[in-house]
Amino acid sequence: MPELRREPVSGCWIIVATERATRPSDFKTNQQIIKSSFCPFCEGNEDKTPPEILAYRDNGAMPDTGGWRVRVVPNKFPALQIEGEENKCVEGIYDMMSGIGAHEVIIESPRHIQSLTSLENGNVKEVLLCYRDRLVDLKNDKRFVYGLLFKNVGASAGASLEHTHSQLIVTPIVPQLVANEMENARIFYQQRERCLFCDMIDQEIDTDRRIVFLTDNFVAFAPFASRFPFEIWILPKNHKSHFENLQEFELDELANVLKGVLGRLETALDLPPYNYIIHSAPFNVTESEFFHWHIEIIPRLTNIAGFEWGTGFYINPTLPEEAAELLRKQ
Amino acid sequence: MPELRREPVSGCWIIVATERATRPSDFKTNQQIIKSSFCPFCEGNEDKTPPEILAYRDNGAMPDTGGWRVRVVPNKFPALQIEGEENKCVEGIYDMMSGIGAHEVIIESPRHIQSLTSLENGNVKEVLLCYRDRLVDLKNDKRFVYGLLFKNVGASAGASLEHTHSQLIVTPIVPQLVANEMENARIFYQQRERCLFCDMIDQEIDTDRRIVFLTDNFVAFAPFASRFPFEIWILPKNHKSHFENLQEFELDELANVLKGVLGRLETALDLPPYNYIIHSAPFNVTESEFFHWHIEIIPRLTNIAGFEWGTGFYINPTLPEEAAELLRKQ
Repeated sequence: MPELRREPVSGCWIIVATERATRPSDFKTNQQIIKSSFCPFCEGNEDKTPPEILAYRDNGAMPDTGGWRVRVVPNKFPALQIEGEENKCVEGIYDMMSGIGAHEVIIESPRHIQSLTSLENGNVKEVLLCYRDRLVDLKNDKRFVYGLLFKNVGASAGASLEHTHSQLIVTPIVPQLVANEMENARIFYQQRERCLFCDMIDQEIDTDRRIVFLTDNFVAFAPFASRFPFEIWILPKNHKSHFENLQEFELDELANVLKGVLGRLETALDLPPYNYIIHSAPFNVTESEFFHWHIEIIPRLTNIAGFEWGTGFYINPTLPEEAAELLRKQ
Repeated sequence: MPELRREPVSGCWIIVATERATRPSDFKTNQQIIKSSFCPFCEGNEDKTPPEILAYRDNGAMPDTGGWRVRVVPNKFPALQIEGEENKCVEGIYDMMSGIGAHEVIIESPRHIQSLTSLENGNVKEVLLCYRDRLVDLKNDKRFVYGLLFKNVGASAGASLEHTHSQLIVTPIVPQLVANEMENARIFYQQRERCLFCDMIDQEIDTDRRIVFLTDNFVAFAPFASRFPFEIWILPKNHKSHFENLQEFELDELANVLKGVLGRLETALDLPPYNYIIHSAPFNVTESEFFHWHIEIIPRLTNIAGFEWGTGFYINPTLPEEAAELLRKQ
């Protein structure tokens, strides 16, 4: 059973999941994508993953057989475990609890495709629909308060398989980083009666210096204070705090914007390693006037070194304005 | 001139330093150590660095010539620039200021040695003495409030040269991560009238499950909630908030402990990439009863992926108790 331990100086929680690596020598091969002729995510290999949780498939096909378009399975090496209770406890000055939660893999195509941008727009939409379905379902479990959807592409961004996929981790506590964002947004709202993110969107559209994509309902821009070169955020123009409250007509448009931004990054940076992360409000918060869901896309072109670990400052060698301009030109 | 921009959602400051890389293609070679027969840090090549700021050298030798044991020079590609004023300003909802500060390199040996552990104990002590001297000097500049000493070893830990060296970055604002640690420690003290770190030291020595080194004045242990496998912290047993207030007799002992811990990590993990970071109280804080300076050593064996970027949670596959036991056995 994984264990959650709270680091008292930073306030961060750590997941100690010893099933994921054991001996010092295991680390040496950790940073490589497993390249082999066999891929457990490809159609026909459904019996090589844990039994599926959800799949969009053609009528009549049985679970864990072929004929699907998107398929969700439990992670074979989960960071958190679905069964159990919290068991919050204390060890002297330290806090800990059981590592309960969900850790799922969203397999985005039955074919051995390495990028979401190789999918048809309709299939990208189904991936987003699948994200929504899984959040809605897991929200029902009252042990859980937060769901994080994310994607790792490339070995240096933490991917271990190349077949296009994303992941969902659901946690029994609100992560500190999310709590911090919520708190900053709450303070901003309290002082101005306006949403921080709505203000950012207005200013970005108004100045038009960092916009990469602009559609009826979505905007993608390089943030003013991008931590990473070519970092891009996608936000809905209409204020909404929860990703899972996205509506059908918005999904089509978001699929186009997401695929469009990723495609431009792939062209400009020659298939860079990257992560994207969906920042959404916690399950136990009702529709919030101060938090605004968004997707953060971070190409992994620079290393995190001692300075960043010691300060939380980031050093970005690329002006966000220049990154946006380059991406608009692709 | 580098620019400091504040990211309003996380509250972090970003340094936009465009001198450090310019075009997308520059990133491709970023993750490699520059290996060449020429090393600007070696004795005899003093004219290939900016003029030295400080050096411990044998009597009579001229600056920027040979005969030194430790040498401090400005970073040739500084993240922050020493000249200038803060120029705090606003751009709509965004805050920014000039990227002033110091960025220095401490060259730890005139010889082309790749690890601090290859130095004699007396030379390690001089490196620490040099850290102290530089902090004491830069504290006099009232534009600056924080000094971060750190070390990057190995390409994946952000090093670009292999010759053993460390760095000092001095900033005009207290970094958010430091402010957060100070605040958590302050709250702990307020509730208990005790230092959080002193309590950790007592509990670690008492339970003796995660101790790696224990001397008269220092303790090294694997933190209860280690973010990374084989993470080790070194703390002075006597409460002190500022590294630069270390005394002569403590420097000898700290040199032995630091070299001892690094040596054990190198043996156990086969020369891993790592960072170490000295966490010390800000310049503008007098001796604090609630903050306790310490060194955090983080081997870089695991990748930071989307989940960590989205939550601030870390997944550690190695029990700190087992890491400590293995290191004690070396």
